Amino acid sequence: MVLVTQMKYEESPSCTQARNKVDVILRMNELPSRHTNAVSLIAELGSESSAHGLARIVSSKGTKRRLIWTLLVIIGLAAATVQFSMLVKKYLQFQVVEVSEVKDSMPVEFPAITVCNIEPISLRKVRKLLSLPDAALKKWLEFVYKFKFGKQSAHLSSIRAFYENLGDEAEYVRHELKDFMLHCRFNKETCGGSNFTTSFDGNYYSCFTFNRGNSDKILMHSTGPENGLSLIIAVDNDNPPLGTYGVYNIHSNILHSAGVRVVVHAPNTMPSPVNHGFDVPPGYSSSIGLKAVLHTRLSEPYGNCSNSILEGSENYNNTFFTCLQLCKQRKIIEKCGCKSSDLPELPSSHSVPFCGYIKNWREMVAHPDNYPPNVYLPKLICEEHVSHEMTTDRSYEVSCKCVQPCHETTFQKSVSLSYWPLEFYQLNILQLLYNGTIAQSQLDEAYTYLSNITDEESQKEDSTMDKGYSSKEKEQAERASKLIRQNLLRVNIYLEDLSVVEFRQMPAYDMADLFADIGGTMGLWMGISVLTIMELVELIIRLIMLLFYTETRQMPEKTTLPNGVIQQQQAERRQFIRHDGLESSV
Amino acid sequence: MVLVTQMKYEESPSCTQARNKVDVILRMNELPSRHTNAVSLIAELGSESSAHGLARIVSSKGTKRRLIWTLLVIIGLAAATVQFSMLVKKYLQFQVVEVSEVKDSMPVEFPAITVCNIEPISLRKVRKLLSLPDAALKKWLEFVYKFKFGKQSAHLSSIRAFYENLGDEAEYVRHELKDFMLHCRFNKETCGGSNFTTSFDGNYYSCFTFNRGNSDKILMHSTGPENGLSLIIAVDNDNPPLGTYGVYNIHSNILHSAGVRVVVHAPNTMPSPVNHGFDVPPGYSSSIGLKAVLHTRLSEPYGNCSNSILEGSENYNNTFFTCLQLCKQRKIIEKCGCKSSDLPELPSSHSVPFCGYIKNWREMVAHPDNYPPNVYLPKLICEEHVSHEMTTDRSYEVSCKCVQPCHETTFQKSVSLSYWPLEFYQLNILQLLYNGTIAQSQLDEAYTYLSNITDEESQKEDSTMDKGYSSKEKEQAERASKLIRQNLLRVNIYLEDLSVVEFRQMPAYDMADLFADIGGTMGLWMGISVLTIMELVELIIRLIMLLFYTETRQMPEKTTLPNGVIQQQQAERRQFIRHDGLESSV
Amino acid sequence: MVLVTQMKYEESPSCTQARNKVDVILRMNELPSRHTNAVSLIAELGSESSAHGLARIVSSKGTKRRLIWTLLVIIGLAAATVQFSMLVKKYLQFQVVEVSEVKDSMPVEFPAITVCNIEPISLRKVRKLLSLPDAALKKWLEFVYKFKFGKQSAHLSSIRAFYENLGDEAEYVRHELKDFMLHCRFNKETCGGSNFTTSFDGNYYSCFTFNRGNSDKILMHSTGPENGLSLIIAVDNDNPPLGTYGVYNIHSNILHSAGVRVVVHAPNTMPSPVNHGFDVPPGYSSSIGLKAVLHTRLSEPYGNCSNSILEGSENYNNTFFTCLQLCKQRKIIEKCGCKSSDLPELPSSHSVPFCGYIKNWREMVAHPDNYPPNVYLPKLICEEHVSHEMTTDRSYEVSCKCVQPCHETTFQKSVSLSYWPLEFYQLNILQLLYNGTIAQSQLDEAYTYLSNITDEESQKEDSTMDKGYSSKEKEQAERASKLIRQNLLRVNIYLEDLSVVEFRQMPAYDMADLFADIGGTMGLWMGISVLTIMELVELIIRLIMLLFYTETRQMPEKTTLPNGVIQQQQAERRQFIRHDGLESSV
Repeated sequence: MVLVTQMKYEESPSCTQARNKVDVILRMNELPSRHTNAVSLIAELGSESSAHGLARIVSSKGTKRRLIWTLLVIIGLAAATVQFSMLVKKYLQFQVVEVSEVKDSMPVEFPAITVCNIEPISLRKVRKLLSLPDAALKKWLEFVYKFKFGKQSAHLSSIRAFYENLGDEAEYVRHELKDFMLHCRFNKETCGGSNFTTSFDGNYYSCFTFNRGNSDKILMHSTGPENGLSLIIAVDNDNPPLGTYGVYNIHSNILHSAGVRVVVHAPNTMPSPVNHGFDVPPGYSSSIGLKAVLHTRLSEPYGNCSNSILEGSENYNNTFFTCLQLCKQRKIIEKCGCKSSDLPELPSSHSVPFCGYIKNWREMVAHPDNYPPNVYLPKLICEEHVSHEMTTDRSYEVSCKCVQPCHETTFQKSVSLSYWPLEFYQLNILQLLYNGTIAQSQLDEAYTYLSNITDEESQKEDSTMDKGYSSKEKEQAERASKLIRQNLLRVNIYLEDLSVVEFRQMPAYDMADLFADIGGTMGLWMGISVLTIMELVELIIRLIMLLFYTETRQMPEKTTLPNGVIQQQQAERRQFIRHDGLESSV
Repeated sequence: MVLVTQMKYEESPSCTQARNKVDVILRMNELPSRHTNAVSLIAELGSESSAHGLARIVSSKGTKRRLIWTLLVIIGLAAATVQFSMLVKKYLQFQVVEVSEVKDSMPVEFPAITVCNIEPISLRKVRKLLSLPDAALKKWLEFVYKFKFGKQSAHLSSIRAFYENLGDEAEYVRHELKDFMLHCRFNKETCGGSNFTTSFDGNYYSCFTFNRGNSDKILMHSTGPENGLSLIIAVDNDNPPLGTYGVYNIHSNILHSAGVRVVVHAPNTMPSPVNHGFDVPPGYSSSIGLKAVLHTRLSEPYGNCSNSILEGSENYNNTFFTCLQLCKQRKIIEKCGCKSSDLPELPSSHSVPFCGYIKNWREMVAHPDNYPPNVYLPKLICEEHVSHEMTTDRSYEVSCKCVQPCHETTFQKSVSLSYWPLEFYQLNILQLLYNGTIAQSQLDEAYTYLSNITDEESQKEDSTMDKGYSSKEKEQAERASKLIRQNLLRVNIYLEDLSVVEFRQMPAYDMADLFADIGGTMGLWMGISVLTIMELVELIIRLIMLLFYTETRQMPEKTTLPNGVIQQQQAERRQFIRHDGLESSV
Repeated sequence: MVLVTQMKYEESPSCTQARNKVDVILRMNELPSRHTNAVSLIAELGSESSAHGLARIVSSKGTKRRLIWTLLVIIGLAAATVQFSMLVKKYLQFQVVEVSEVKDSMPVEFPAITVCNIEPISLRKVRKLLSLPDAALKKWLEFVYKFKFGKQSAHLSSIRAFYENLGDEAEYVRHELKDFMLHCRFNKETCGGSNFTTSFDGNYYSCFTFNRGNSDKILMHSTGPENGLSLIIAVDNDNPPLGTYGVYNIHSNILHSAGVRVVVHAPNTMPSPVNHGFDVPPGYSSSIGLKAVLHTRLSEPYGNCSNSILEGSENYNNTFFTCLQLCKQRKIIEKCGCKSSDLPELPSSHSVPFCGYIKNWREMVAHPDNYPPNVYLPKLICEEHVSHEMTTDRSYEVSCKCVQPCHETTFQKSVSLSYWPLEFYQLNILQLLYNGTIAQSQLDEAYTYLSNITDEESQKEDSTMDKGYSSKEKEQAERASKLIRQNLLRVNIYLEDLSVVEFRQMPAYDMADLFADIGGTMGLWMGISVLTIMELVELIIRLIMLLFYTETRQMPEKTTLPNGVIQQQQAERRQFIRHDGLESSV
């Protein structure tokens, strides 16, 4: 009359003879050592584990087989770990891929257009200035001529030194919008001075920006030169009096040519004509087709873009280049105590003097004998030294903490030229553009020639064309044409396409990919899931519990959780004993 | 004589005393309620399930443990669901990545080259026309001068209005290929008029397309200007009789300059010179290096490209831009009942009049007193209104249903100039190009000058060079050079490279990725596979079966499937009873 | 007194009556047939397998259910296999994605700049040569004039034939650096002849390369034209004596224009001016803004790039284009036994004659009567034939085995022009550039005019400007300006940006992705892992063992491994019998 509970992995005891043995076993179970409990817990997990292989290890009776399965599980674990670490490493690189997309139905913002005259000063104005008896410019030229400045003499004879020391006169001789911009049309409507913002540039003095960006965005819905910005500009390529020739500054790569420097940039960003501009020659109609390209960048942790406003003297959106320029200015002010006229102003630098400013030059030129002929300019030397350092070693950039903007619009340009204006229309265009004020302009001579010829023509009775003209008239017409084409230019800046190419950064490998791949990896090598890991966690908790509570002293009934299985086993055993007892009582 | 069936999850009954109880239980099992059956089915699935955790829940005896495992399974399920939905969302975005590849060994198709004269009409021909007594052009100018058109006067004085009202004379004064194209060489061989297709453009009148695309593809196997297309073009920059000056149309941004407008486009696509062209000035040899770029796009569901032929008046391949142009024309015809001369023709629009067409202008100009001086042009106003609407609001584009082509070849251009032709070769080039017909051309004067100088030179005996020349001869040579360089130009259009950059769209996340990631996700969080889901499906089917068949009334033997397990259990129990019976009989 | 072992999947035998049956079963188990063993092994695996579904198949009692589960497992297996093969196929495509990255803080290497005069020979030198009584050039012209060469006459009258036959005189008449490069400034410092390397080009004769690349890399840390390379070049656009006009070669697309051809290429790579260059016209200051683009390519198995040095006559880094050029030269030498002057030299080809070389032309021109008037040039015909073949069929490229370099730097160019030099500075610039040697140059005349005017001016007392000048003086000033602007040009080549755009190829799908996806796939469809596969492997091994060892003859105790489970079962059964025996003995 024996009842046997056949429990998995426990050898079945015999029916009656085994009763004593069973009792012994039960007693052992009732007073288990910690060690036995831990082993059984692990064995239980192993046998029940959803992790492939673990059950095999525990269930394997043969030592060799168990060994092999253990080895396989370890290899699987190692492989999973290796691949797991590869995946995490891949994730932590935060690599990005660029997805490019052509966006067709997005309105395109018209860029800001900055136009500067390549010759920074108006020679006509300089001539006028020099004719005045007490022009500071004359004294300045005398000063530069009389004294010696060593290596700094190149700077002293430059446009920048002129500005640094004769601010007012430099302001006077620079180009003005009203003389410069003869005609402006945008999107089939006339535009004027109010659409332009004047700014100062160290290399080109006056620069005029269309669509500076403070007002509303100009969204374009149409393409082609008829719907773009069309400017007619007079470059003031003054025809100098014969026989007066200027000094060519061989140290400058950008001066002494005629035309305008144009920068196409995003609204609200600072233009850098010298770096990012392109030239447009006079005598031609330049056709500048644009294609908008949008760059969208990711911020932390994939990248480090920023959309902040830069703290220059004017508020501009962040671009990497502008940020660096401002940083350079900051370094120079820090190290030399003066600012550079080549770099943009900082809000704090308005009271800081220019590095090239010579305080007492008027005094020096008035009484040259009181001063040594060699002038030493420590601040200028400092500026040149720091500038040179920054152009040969970019390590200072680290401290600038400049980052790319998160959204940046650039424009691909295609520049082409056509001969303009045609001789046939030259008289009429002068009449239209100057509208009576031609006498004050440098094209007065050309206009006189052309109108003379026309007048004579209308007086003549025979219209025997061409042949009837004297050689002198031909010559004058040609000279007029030359003068006009040396001075006037037309620029058409337009969108070629309303499609915007967007380059968008995307995480190459994001969290979802990582999780899926980890799942795949663990599944591949081990057949385990998060719940399998939970099984292991449960085991560990139970093992820890075992360490703290000595279960032998407690009543089995009370040890419900966390070792419910043990309780269950024990309950079964108690029942068994009870049955046994009942049976024996029978 | 006790028999005990130790069934998992069922408490083991006692050996002998429990027999009655067992009988009761067995009877209960033989007559199970629906509820019991369902519970046992679920319990069975749980215990046998390959889903990690489920077995744990069912096997856990302790309520707390069971609760925790249930919680863990639910959390795992939730996490899996969340990630699963993320993956599906990611898939349903149908995102694409662009793979760029440099293809080296692919033959490159030579593009179509469309060339237009920037001045749409030949001034020489206009002069000839005006000398005729009954030229309609004269009357038209009179009409435009006499009447007032309000805001439409800008249009009336334009080239387009001239074409719309004086079709025949406009056809006559436009440039012809034979005068325009003086020399053509392609791939080291001479080409001629048969290689060009003439088309009409609203802005430039005559445009000539090389390699229009109807015939065989021209595949290029070599690079450089010697193997490209070289054109020598006369822009007919007519030297007007001195003293006759034209009216400069300040409302046009593209007129009044000399040169040609060149479009490089894929064969079989419609060129848009005004939007996609670039200018080439006379007096220069323009070097236009091309690099082919191939865009391959995906169709549904990743994109919406189309390779269809557009239904314009001529058959062109689909491009987004052309599709929009045709759509705009369709809108104008719909709304105004007339077509625009600025947009391409539709096959159905041949009989539709132009919006700028004034039916009775000849009558009006003949008897101006019969008509009010202010002319109201409702159709033209309508066209201008609709056009303006479309350039300020792009919402109409939605109804156009224009899509990008699936395969598009574009060409990156690099345009540069050199001074051409050198004075040294000018006489010879005139002889070669005009070959006796110089008298009819506008370069007659230049040729006369140059040949006179050469003749005089050969008559002279002393070859004292240069110095011997009179000022007049120098002047004439210079004037000849100027005339030649104002009129002639050379364009070399060639491939810089035979490498094609292909931008190919690829699904960023395709079905295979989704499946693999779902597998990974489910494996990661739940340890379940499709087969585990099948287990669940089986359970559900069996539960449904249970609802429809009342199993209590059926013999257990007959309930083989789908509740085979129950049958098995019952079979065991029956056997058990039988054994019991046998035993009791003993 | 019955003991029952309730074993999973074994029907429970009855307590006492079943003993005989059990004995039979046990006897069967003790003497198992091979077949029984194999079946039980598979059943064991099935029941224990961690592969979802397998356990279901084995455990299912109902045939239909088993069938369905088998079907489901097969479907899962098939789906997994299909997807698995898709994944492997995807991996084996070794597709790459291009990741583009803007690198901000990387120093940018300044490119090599190659400058060639578009007119290959100096007309001034040719004139000088022709004035010598025994110039070979005269005889050569006579030879070309006297004899006929059929289709080869175009070649014979070309620049290349001149070089091939009159090497020494061709060397003499080509442009020299000292006449060509008047002024050079780089990064604010003067540069000179030592910075340039002279090379020969078939189309342009002399080309001068700045930063050829043999010395140290020039790393740029600053942008803008002031920090770039600025060259002032005299194109030697000789003002020929009036009345002498040259022969225009209508078969050439590149000759007869004035200017320079500029190539911007990576240092240490071979320039190809005709293919990759752009033109710069005289009379203008050309502004060439560069942006560096870096291409990094993957080698095998993802791509086939190579960083090797090409074995030309000079050592250049591998580029696809140069490799092809060298390959073409090799083919021509192979097939015709002579080299082409249009292609770069090979190290082995120095002694090979040019294909256009005519051995006895001096003899022929001396005694023309001894030779037939039609000259047959088989080698030249062969060269032209092979060249033509290679430009119409690119299949030869396969045998060249040319590959892209692994690292390639290209430069995006933006070319623009401004009018230069301004008339106001023309006298001074001549003085600065020629510094006393003006008399030998072609600008002597211009200088004389300008200095005459200035001298007269300074002699005059009244400074009534302009108006006081005679028409002749004006004319001379204009002629001087024209001469200067026909001959001089300035090129500014600079970096627009220090940001480098790097296009880096990345494996689109690497080994780690494959493994993770395989794991996901197998987990998804089958719920199996590598360890599950190991279970299968174990089964197969055990089945194989079974084939070799007849287990029936062995004692069960000895069959520990690989069928430990069977041993365990048998052990249990033995114990059972023992118990039984014990019991029976009671």
